[in-house]
Amino acid sequence: MYRFHKLDKMTSTRCAVCKYFRRRCPPDCIFAPYFLNDNPQRFICVHRFYGASNIGKMLEEMPVQLRADAVDSLYYEAKCRIQDPVYGCVGIITSLHRQIQIAQSQLAKAQAEISFLDANFVGFEPTPSLSESLVQQNGFEQGLDDPFSTWFY
Amino acid sequence: MYRFHKLDKMTSTRCAVCKYFRRRCPPDCIFAPYFLNDNPQRFICVHRFYGASNIGKMLEEMPVQLRADAVDSLYYEAKCRIQDPVYGCVGIITSLHRQIQIAQSQLAKAQAEISFLDANFVGFEPTPSLSESLVQQNGFEQGLDDPFSTWFY
Repeated sequence: MYRFHKLDKMTSTRCAVCKYFRRRCPPDCIFAPYFLNDNPQRFICVHRFYGASNIGKMLEEMPVQLRADAVDSLYYEAKCRIQDPVYGCVGIITSLHRQIQIAQSQLAKAQAEISFLDANFVGFEPTPSLSESLVQQNGFEQGLDDPFSTWFY
Repeated sequence: MYRFHKLDKMTSTRCAVCKYFRRRCPPDCIFAPYFLNDNPQRFICVHRFYGASNIGKMLEEMPVQLRADAVDSLYYEAKCRIQDPVYGCVGIITSLHRQIQIAQSQLAKAQAEISFLDANFVGFEPTPSLSESLVQQNGFEQGLDDPFSTWFY
């Protein structure tokens, strides 16, 4: 009876890693702050790819204040690898690179379009009626030379 | 003398993984196609984080034709983790997300600028002299209603 009681107390204070390995969790356990008892899945996930020993080594090699971020990033990578066993989060990087290329290409097109519109918008002397209609339309008084200089950026 | 000769022959045909573990490389070695003898660093790099056993398990669980890509992506992740032990390639993902946000914000600004220019460019009846000057300036005959419809995209 006493034995069960002791075991019960031990399990409630063990971190997820020590619980997984069915061992006592020492007060200075390197895993305890990052693998809490109530989320065993987090450790199972990173352990599947990196192994507890490698994770422990990585944590030991970095300052304490960076370890939580390191475990978060390892967990993210492990989740990506579960979702996409072939490419993992490198698949996400590839997809993001593609998105950046698309956005940059759209931006280049838009900038070329602006240059064209700008050139034709300001490339001739406005007639008085044209200036007036712009002021009427937009509610601000600007010439045709630099219509965006003050409000747009 | 014979013994050295045999060992020499064995080492030359072993893959980088079997060479690392100083073992015979079987003809059906799961690592051999992806960890060639002449690039031991590639295996050392992934082994440091994942461990040979985990890499072997991952490879076994996927079709042969995807294994080369999987090893490449693991190698990429491992190199990222060496460069940035805390964030690994998750740091790259964060940076790419930021770049996409910047590009999208620039694109939104550019599109708003285009909308403004377009609205003021086509929002009134052009005088004959304005139309003529545009055709003269740009060398193509287009009305003011949709100046980009045919050549720009």
